[in-house]
Amino acid sequence: MKTYRIAVVAGDGIGNEVMPEGIRVLDAVGRKYGFGFHWDEKPWSCEYYAKHGHMMPADGLAQIRNHDAIYLGAVGFPGVPDHVSLWGLLIPIRREFQQYVNLRPVRLMPGVPSPLANRKPGDIDFWVVRENNEGEYSSIGGKMYAGLESEFVTQLTILSKKGTDRIMRFAFELAKKRKRKHVTSATKSNGIAITMPYWDERFKAISAEYPDIKTSSYHIDILTAHFVQHPDWFDVVVGTNLFGDILSDLGPACTGTIGIAPGANINPEKEFPSCFEPVHGSAPDIAGKGIANPIGQIWSGAMMLDHLGHGDASDAIVAAIEKVLKDGPRTRDMGGTANTVEVGKAIAAAI
Amino acid sequence: MKTYRIAVVAGDGIGNEVMPEGIRVLDAVGRKYGFGFHWDEKPWSCEYYAKHGHMMPADGLAQIRNHDAIYLGAVGFPGVPDHVSLWGLLIPIRREFQQYVNLRPVRLMPGVPSPLANRKPGDIDFWVVRENNEGEYSSIGGKMYAGLESEFVTQLTILSKKGTDRIMRFAFELAKKRKRKHVTSATKSNGIAITMPYWDERFKAISAEYPDIKTSSYHIDILTAHFVQHPDWFDVVVGTNLFGDILSDLGPACTGTIGIAPGANINPEKEFPSCFEPVHGSAPDIAGKGIANPIGQIWSGAMMLDHLGHGDASDAIVAAIEKVLKDGPRTRDMGGTANTVEVGKAIAAAI
Ligand SMILES: CC(C)[C@H](C(=O)O)[C@@H](O)C(=O)O
Ligand SMILES: CC(C)[C@H](C(=O)O)[C@@H](O)C(=O)O
Repeated sequence: MKTYRIAVVAGDGIGNEVMPEGIRVLDAVGRKYGFGFHWDEKPWSCEYYAKHGHMMPADGLAQIRNHDAIYLGAVGFPGVPDHVSLWGLLIPIRREFQQYVNLRPVRLMPGVPSPLANRKPGDIDFWVVRENNEGEYSSIGGKMYAGLESEFVTQLTILSKKGTDRIMRFAFELAKKRKRKHVTSATKSNGIAITMPYWDERFKAISAEYPDIKTSSYHIDILTAHFVQHPDWFDVVVGTNLFGDILSDLGPACTGTIGIAPGANINPEKEFPSCFEPVHGSAPDIAGKGIANPIGQIWSGAMMLDHLGHGDASDAIVAAIEKVLKDGPRTRDMGGTANTVEVGKAIAAAI
Repeated sequence: MKTYRIAVVAGDGIGNEVMPEGIRVLDAVGRKYGFGFHWDEKPWSCEYYAKHGHMMPADGLAQIRNHDAIYLGAVGFPGVPDHVSLWGLLIPIRREFQQYVNLRPVRLMPGVPSPLANRKPGDIDFWVVRENNEGEYSSIGGKMYAGLESEFVTQLTILSKKGTDRIMRFAFELAKKRKRKHVTSATKSNGIAITMPYWDERFKAISAEYPDIKTSSYHIDILTAHFVQHPDWFDVVVGTNLFGDILSDLGPACTGTIGIAPGANINPEKEFPSCFEPVHGSAPDIAGKGIANPIGQIWSGAMMLDHLGHGDASDAIVAAIEKVLKDGPRTRDMGGTANTVEVGKAIAAAI
């Protein structure tokens, strides 16, 4: 039996509560489809930071570099500044393992109330493909004239040809496998008039390699408006690190799924392990109460299986999630009274 | 009788169709409240560019620098690249006249269908205060290794203490005059980890000057989600040039008012003229048909009056807009059959 070695980083807050449910469901689907997991748990977190002064050991990434994947809960907790917790754990995983694709679905699910009027399951179903390694999230910049009236700070946005082309190709390849075969580019070349015209130029160049794929391009301001007013227009949306970050929160907000949306940080070449994590954070306000919704973690597990080549098993998890969303049990955020474990068990049972 | 000298830049596309209606309504309200206008029309536009090779004459800004205000329609048209048309006209006006505040209302209006479920007029009523001079819209950056595989482009984001503090103070001063007295900051300090932590630091420092104003701060990704899910949370939202740009399109999209939202580019010190323009663009697809909705232009005129010190006359225009939105006539985008002139005349008559 094939056994996958998975690095488990439950992280902070509700990460510790939803992770066991993700594992429960993956174990269940593995039993059904004939594969298994070795779960290698790493305690890296803000708690770990409090004890050791760093979010993970110096050789942390080396410890997990040969694993088949990384299964992550949530990183960040009050008391540790975000730039310490995230740049000490999540961002290095994304960068050093060249997980240059951040992939998140926007889908209206049965049983999930959407804030948008007059939309029903099936109406909204698209992917946000986010560049995950460079762009606006650079480490170049600093402060000048500190303490004086003339003080200012700078930060450089960097788009490389390599980084831009590969994320666009990923988006086009994904669109190729879909029914509508349509890629939408998020730009802002009218305002961010140096880097974004380059983004447009590369989008045009790469789209020429895919003559059968329909393309559109919108400035990020009006694009966010279209997400609200015309979410049915989209199939695959590709954006820079920042624009993709925004769109992959806004999209799930429009479908009411922000608390349950999954995410994948992918190294498509499989040279390094990819990392699967829910879109939601560590939710300090409800942490420790056992009431967090585990669906984002479980759905991220489905994306992990898809990446590992088990499309059928992945689909089975998504179907089980849809069944439980429709029939219950439901956690509080979905209008129910069930706890985290009850929902996890129900999804595992539905497999 | 006080007569205001206004530079009129109708610009491109539907700018030319909605501008006369804005002027019609302003003339009407002036007659009622006892002031007048001298309309100094400037033909600066993409058409002008086609004839002269530049969007405005070299001394264009000097020609209007002593005017009381600038009333602008829309800039940009297919055939002239955005970075030429906008950076040749709109952006220089914003920058050289130190219009460092971009102010746009987000308001659910009677008779306007909102894409959000279960919201009614009164539920959503806030302002987006956008930094309008620096930030992500810088002119610093460029391309390296052009034509090679290692090609990359860069662009610098710059936040100065002066630029950051003054936009925040404007937001707090605005909140002071409102009922809920609440300023929300749009940040992304967990990802854009050099400039945005500085933004947070200044937000904290300036908020200390306003102990009676409530404050909140959200990362831009989740903030866009809150605009959709909890638009009732906001009173005054302050953001950088890019974040403010996004939020001031997304907000009106949530209220269904993106086609009618007004905007003001303000130099609060009144050292230079301020510029008032609708949020919508030149709409090449419907230009020339006489069917464009003039309400954004007219509402921008109301903001101009407010800036000139005529709060009552400004309120009278907004009330007339609300009456016509409720009772008609309506342009097509609002589900009616009226043309641009009919709506303009109806609003002028309602004054
Ligand atoms: C046209 C463009 C440069 C402009 C901006 O981004 O500032 C527009 O979107 C706006 O909001 O006025
Ligand atoms: C926590 C933060 C750094 C992160 C990001 O912006 O990448 C998060 O918002 C995400 O989308 O995974």
